[in-house]
Amino acid sequence: MTDAQTITQPHAASKSMDDIVALSKRRGFIYPASEIYGGINGFWDFGPLGALLKNNVRDAWWRAMVLCPPIGPDGHPLQIVGLDSAIIQNPRTWEASGHVGGFNDPMMDDKETKARYRADHIWVYFPKQPASVRFGIAVEAGSFEEAEQRFDKLYQTAKWQKIVRKAAKVFNFNPDDHYWLGMKRPGNITEEEARNAFGPAGEYPGTWEARCGTELSKEDLAITRSPDADEFGTLTEPRMFNLMFETYIGAIRDEDAKAYLRPETAQGIFLNYKNVLDTTRVKVPFGIAQVGKAFRNEVTPRNFIFRSREFEQMEMEWFCPPDQSQKWYEFWKDQRMKWWRSLGVAPGNLRFREHDQEELAHYSNACVDVEYQYPFTAPGFGELEGIAHRGDFDLTQHMQHSGAKLEYFDQQRNQRYLPHVIEPASGLTRGVLVLLCEAFTPDPSRPSKVFMKFHPAMAPVKAGIFPLVNKDGMPEIGEKLYLELRKKYAVEYDAKQSIGKRYARMDEAGAPYCFTIDGDTLKDNTVTVRHRDTCQQQRINIDRVTAFLTENIDRGD
Amino acid sequence: MTDAQTITQPHAASKSMDDIVALSKRRGFIYPASEIYGGINGFWDFGPLGALLKNNVRDAWWRAMVLCPPIGPDGHPLQIVGLDSAIIQNPRTWEASGHVGGFNDPMMDDKETKARYRADHIWVYFPKQPASVRFGIAVEAGSFEEAEQRFDKLYQTAKWQKIVRKAAKVFNFNPDDHYWLGMKRPGNITEEEARNAFGPAGEYPGTWEARCGTELSKEDLAITRSPDADEFGTLTEPRMFNLMFETYIGAIRDEDAKAYLRPETAQGIFLNYKNVLDTTRVKVPFGIAQVGKAFRNEVTPRNFIFRSREFEQMEMEWFCPPDQSQKWYEFWKDQRMKWWRSLGVAPGNLRFREHDQEELAHYSNACVDVEYQYPFTAPGFGELEGIAHRGDFDLTQHMQHSGAKLEYFDQQRNQRYLPHVIEPASGLTRGVLVLLCEAFTPDPSRPSKVFMKFHPAMAPVKAGIFPLVNKDGMPEIGEKLYLELRKKYAVEYDAKQSIGKRYARMDEAGAPYCFTIDGDTLKDNTVTVRHRDTCQQQRINIDRVTAFLTENIDRGD
Repeated sequence: MTDAQTITQPHAASKSMDDIVALSKRRGFIYPASEIYGGINGFWDFGPLGALLKNNVRDAWWRAMVLCPPIGPDGHPLQIVGLDSAIIQNPRTWEASGHVGGFNDPMMDDKETKARYRADHIWVYFPKQPASVRFGIAVEAGSFEEAEQRFDKLYQTAKWQKIVRKAAKVFNFNPDDHYWLGMKRPGNITEEEARNAFGPAGEYPGTWEARCGTELSKEDLAITRSPDADEFGTLTEPRMFNLMFETYIGAIRDEDAKAYLRPETAQGIFLNYKNVLDTTRVKVPFGIAQVGKAFRNEVTPRNFIFRSREFEQMEMEWFCPPDQSQKWYEFWKDQRMKWWRSLGVAPGNLRFREHDQEELAHYSNACVDVEYQYPFTAPGFGELEGIAHRGDFDLTQHMQHSGAKLEYFDQQRNQRYLPHVIEPASGLTRGVLVLLCEAFTPDPSRPSKVFMKFHPAMAPVKAGIFPLVNKDGMPEIGEKLYLELRKKYAVEYDAKQSIGKRYARMDEAGAPYCFTIDGDTLKDNTVTVRHRDTCQQQRINIDRVTAFLTENIDRGD
Repeated sequence: MTDAQTITQPHAASKSMDDIVALSKRRGFIYPASEIYGGINGFWDFGPLGALLKNNVRDAWWRAMVLCPPIGPDGHPLQIVGLDSAIIQNPRTWEASGHVGGFNDPMMDDKETKARYRADHIWVYFPKQPASVRFGIAVEAGSFEEAEQRFDKLYQTAKWQKIVRKAAKVFNFNPDDHYWLGMKRPGNITEEEARNAFGPAGEYPGTWEARCGTELSKEDLAITRSPDADEFGTLTEPRMFNLMFETYIGAIRDEDAKAYLRPETAQGIFLNYKNVLDTTRVKVPFGIAQVGKAFRNEVTPRNFIFRSREFEQMEMEWFCPPDQSQKWYEFWKDQRMKWWRSLGVAPGNLRFREHDQEELAHYSNACVDVEYQYPFTAPGFGELEGIAHRGDFDLTQHMQHSGAKLEYFDQQRNQRYLPHVIEPASGLTRGVLVLLCEAFTPDPSRPSKVFMKFHPAMAPVKAGIFPLVNKDGMPEIGEKLYLELRKKYAVEYDAKQSIGKRYARMDEAGAPYCFTIDGDTLKDNTVTVRHRDTCQQQRINIDRVTAFLTENIDRGD
């Protein structure tokens, strides 16, 4: 038996993404979409447990935003209303928002393998000196730090030998005759020049210069070809590629009929800003919130459901007077971090990352990401939610493109203005991924070797109800208890297999409690409560089970 | 004050669809999508009240299917699990399902106006005798009954004169020189022939033959041109048009990259049938349920959200042994009707309609629609849900197309078979429309002239909380009550405007109760409860308000 106190949250780096993906499939959290047809890259289906888990995150967000908005700085509850706008909107929406013109990723093709990469995920390392060394090594990585790590690793491994042999062919030298870190000087430079370029043997040179794919010229690419990280052929120059999925409405396929699948839910909110003002009782400052699907034709979907082509967002646009926007930016930043923590995400696995000026989108005055330490980013962090100060960019754009008057008359101030907008925009799909990663807890002492330590309020199944054996009146009592509990909680009744196997299954499902009906139940009306996190068991009266769940499921709220 | 007993549910025909659409917009139930850009045909946005209402229907269905499945014929609860599959799946899915080959609507274009019509919504009336009368009158209508009504009306109105004048030009006769119902015999027939064709003057002839657009030949269309119902030019022959929206995945737009937006959620379930069997504990018979968006590139979206291009479905596939399928078909038929009634839809406004053999889809052994009497179909009915006996069509198709083994080994029977499927498939969007139509209750005695009589459990807002005046300590008490109630219910706090206006707004929102804090509250701790349906008021202690809502909201469940 494992003591809860001895299990500390394992570091993200110690959790294997492969194991998490495998468990997600095995227990029915997430399946690859269209699996029987060989799948479809970038699309995933949520299985029985995954759908329940996702609904829990969705409902918690909707509750925190729409049903029970936070108490504001003045001590009164904020005004936020819900919305559910269409995925397909008038295409002029996306001209106004800048997505038609600007929602592009620069991409590079590999001429040999036909693979396509996001240019900002390609890093090419050139020897700093001399310029005449016509050689570059490409690695693919989501960030510069990751690229450095990959390059560093590459440099120290046998793979390097492979690169050397490739380079040898291109630069026409004998790969066995080398003394600078497995690299002989190319023929057209002196030994001294090459030593400067590659450093002394066995030592990481520090004399390489990394350049991002987006910055590469035709000339750069000419010298990058072939001697690569064993992954790349000849890369083309970066070309822009719009990330919106296109379709046509009606039978005629011309420019007039072209429409887009929304790449974000936010614009549906801006489109309805005036409708909401006209048809509800909200006054600035107020918010409009919605949860829904969005689509991005990602060049390289990856990291499980982290970067998929179809995903769900939870976005809220907070409209406020321009001179209060900074205050609200700070308010929402604080709120959103608290909220993620309330779902059971360990504070140490979350952090803020303020975007610097260069990184900010054209529409944004300030932006901070809530980042999570995913197993595939550890020890680094990756995006979970962005809280952006969008100023009046969106309303200005839609006002200009539509001709609609979107200014707000503030009666209290006797002033007309375009509200500024603070946007906490999070991924529902990513939220599910975070909860899966966070909950995944290896424990060699259990039959399942792992259990999913979900916050009880987020757990897709709150309890398993098991008759110890499927006879002797136990199933009847179990089913009665199940019928009682399911009125309030998502619970499972299971009468088959050994009790150990049933506990193991519930450990992997992350059900915080199991209630077992056994011989004693028939005598004294008690059941065994088995605690997921500790594997400890206690007995309580069967009449107390509902109250037990109520007391324990909502703890920490 | 109106007495509840005197208000009977008005007949659908007495409710104006225009009024329902106007209220939906005015109170923030449903807005036209992209309204500031002039809209987009066939797409709608759910506003603050609409989103709440839709969520209530969605959650009630999910609860009835996944969280608390019905008790089966054997007295034990059924096994149904949830799913949430991607909108975009491997395109081979839709080849297997028959949607690529067969999900087509025959369409006709108007060569002059460029408008496009569903051929099965075009009805052309030809004089029965003689065949040589080269003349036809086209009307557009969703059903034959509707077409007859339109033709009949047309026949009796001044519009007829217009048609005659048009026909006169084409058939070269003098429009003023006519004696058969405003129609002179065309020159190439005798007076007797024409009399037979058109009947005696002033009398509905009954000698017209209606032919559906789908049955029209080139020859038929040649004689239909121009002399129409003032709406049509020259119609082309019917041509097939696939209703699936297409898009391309990745940057290359070729046949390999083509994908579709799902036209139904059902196929995502069939794709995961094996995954669910392999990763959960269900055994046949069991169900898989999901709620989600679907898209159909409808030629003529219409009737508000009844036939839109983007909509939501709630579908459950029930997998059962072939020899039990008829029993389960009857079971689900019964369950689904009960469920719609439980949402407060009057039994008289719902009916079953069994599809006859000719109408059945190729995959279906039997199908029954749950129909509702919409204002635009009254006195007729229109589809709300279909309960289809799909046999093993889908699993067979996917087994053949994917090569995956989808047969089920039934341990109890020691038998291997492909389960048969019963599919209760309902529209979530249509469910919302039904609740809006059903709730819409004109009442001239109220300031709002109308109130929305939602079942309390479905009402988007359960209660309004109003301080009578926005001072004297009343707002503080009101806000405290609001903060207490919102933990459990969707409630609104509103302190502005006259109390009459606030009640009127809540009548249109369909909030079953309003709680008003007034001078007496300060003295004796009571509030006024105002009942939506009766406008009657009572006083209860403020501490009893939560209990009052609990007792009343769930009544009838």
